[in-house]
Amino acid sequence: MENPVLVEATRGPLVESRHRGALVIADSAGKTVFSLGDIGTPVFPRSAIKALQALPLLESGAADALDFDDAELALACASHNGEEVHAKSARIMLLKAGLTEEALECGPQWPKRMEDAAKLIQADEQPCALHNNCSGKHAAFLGLARVLGAPTAGYVAPEHPVQQEIRIVLEQMTGQKLTADICGTDGCSIPTYAAPLDGFARAFAVFGTGEGLSPGRARACERLYEACVNEPYMVAGAGRFCTEVMDAFRGRVFVKTGAEGVFCGSIPELGFGFALKCEDGATRAAEVMTAALLEVLLDTDEEQAEVLARQVTPEIQTRRGVRAGEVRPAPDFLAALMSIG
Amino acid sequence: MENPVLVEATRGPLVESRHRGALVIADSAGKTVFSLGDIGTPVFPRSAIKALQALPLLESGAADALDFDDAELALACASHNGEEVHAKSARIMLLKAGLTEEALECGPQWPKRMEDAAKLIQADEQPCALHNNCSGKHAAFLGLARVLGAPTAGYVAPEHPVQQEIRIVLEQMTGQKLTADICGTDGCSIPTYAAPLDGFARAFAVFGTGEGLSPGRARACERLYEACVNEPYMVAGAGRFCTEVMDAFRGRVFVKTGAEGVFCGSIPELGFGFALKCEDGATRAAEVMTAALLEVLLDTDEEQAEVLARQVTPEIQTRRGVRAGEVRPAPDFLAALMSIG
Repeated sequence: MENPVLVEATRGPLVESRHRGALVIADSAGKTVFSLGDIGTPVFPRSAIKALQALPLLESGAADALDFDDAELALACASHNGEEVHAKSARIMLLKAGLTEEALECGPQWPKRMEDAAKLIQADEQPCALHNNCSGKHAAFLGLARVLGAPTAGYVAPEHPVQQEIRIVLEQMTGQKLTADICGTDGCSIPTYAAPLDGFARAFAVFGTGEGLSPGRARACERLYEACVNEPYMVAGAGRFCTEVMDAFRGRVFVKTGAEGVFCGSIPELGFGFALKCEDGATRAAEVMTAALLEVLLDTDEEQAEVLARQVTPEIQTRRGVRAGEVRPAPDFLAALMSIG
Repeated sequence: MENPVLVEATRGPLVESRHRGALVIADSAGKTVFSLGDIGTPVFPRSAIKALQALPLLESGAADALDFDDAELALACASHNGEEVHAKSARIMLLKAGLTEEALECGPQWPKRMEDAAKLIQADEQPCALHNNCSGKHAAFLGLARVLGAPTAGYVAPEHPVQQEIRIVLEQMTGQKLTADICGTDGCSIPTYAAPLDGFARAFAVFGTGEGLSPGRARACERLYEACVNEPYMVAGAGRFCTEVMDAFRGRVFVKTGAEGVFCGSIPELGFGFALKCEDGATRAAEVMTAALLEVLLDTDEEQAEVLARQVTPEIQTRRGVRAGEVRPAPDFLAALMSIG
């Protein structure tokens, strides 16, 4: 099945570019509530499943043993901007595990925003692994390694106990076998396993509701969900989609972006999880898809409506800040969403 | 007609993302030699036609009156990195026209590369309109306005004599009517007119060969072509596709990128021009499409083959610089290209 055009980018009177994609909404029993596009092809979830990758940290008791607070748990689930607050929190997580940034194997990355990069440049510093958008996740992996008594060096390798723990949890949450033939290397050097979108949609329905889980895993999901929605700034940062949406919805939704146009999320009040992939990997389109889905599915207050309206049709501007066009849901996509429920 | 998948991005053993697109190769008589995808929908050419937008500068005598050299003519056709050499050359072009950067209406832009941005930050400077990737084109517009005796303020407006001159030349070169209903605003605030790809492919076949043109226009095309291929660093800069390809091909091809996944080019030895658009606007895919097209169409020496091989399948790396996948032409796209000639 072909992926339909879900998002358009306009310029003046015309559509300039088009983004296709696939999307699944599922409930916690794994039933597909709604789908669009090619949902059979395995998708690398990338950073969209960081919250699932953090489950062993909670279930092992490592999060409590290391005294990680909500902000730190949120950072473990984050693709952050590499702002000072993010880098500093990652350093503290490592300190709590008796480690330093030398232990991180995610590689260095410039902060996402020029103003944060400028602070480093003005201080004559280079970006380090603490600024990598995945540094919180990696600090959590290292904390887990310590509590498991596993070596910290090489914790990114697929055969390391930390990555094995995560793979098993992902298999249980998605209901998919995650094997070497569908394994790629993520940008931060850890394994990423591809699976059909419905597996991830189901996993996030369960993540948001706890339905069908053992008490221990349900509690782990609840703590991570609460940490992210209570500390949305730690999950991304200034000007970021995940932060703005979770901030506005105050606990009603969890959303998380992944590289190459992936989004996953939980909507506990409806019992739904969702997973989507923009075919071409564009984040601008995956964000519009997610915003449109939330706008159609949820009743909103004024603040929530304002945030979603801005994220559903973000403006495209000239370098002088004048409107030149917008990114927006394709009419057929909106019509299809309206048919839900 | 649907756009086929022309480019794939892989990760480990799987294709992670897919880019669709449309492509036309034409000769200078306007005959379509080869096409793929939806070639009927009008495309905003954006910066890919800067060389055509510079024709009035030459034909009016303004380039000679202002004593613009090859490097400056190349900068007039450029989407440059905003490196020191680019910003400085744009300032000199303005000085030659008796103006300063205050006259530029393109808006400010950070240099493309962090190391060039860092130089500004270390000097406690903000980026200005000279660093805008279009500053050379705008300096050329202002030079033309001066020689035409037109006001310099407002030179970006569709009704300004400079933009009217350009619109007429574009109509002649593409064989298309360019009217307000297909006009958008480019990122640098000037009008951009959408037209089918075959119009642009034909225009660049003519640009590269001069066939069918008046002597004055043919000479203008030749001077701009020569300027770009002689000074490819001014057209883009360090690490950039257009610079590397034109540098390696030493006059055999002209290529130019445009925002939202557009590329245009001339291959005079074959009498061909081409124009392509990645449906979703991705530059990474438009570059691979262009490199694949050149690799199939042209006999190459060792250096040319090396540059194209790298640009046809650029590596996707982790933040530690380890290979994670690649961007590459889709097998069906390569097979279709092989069928040419």
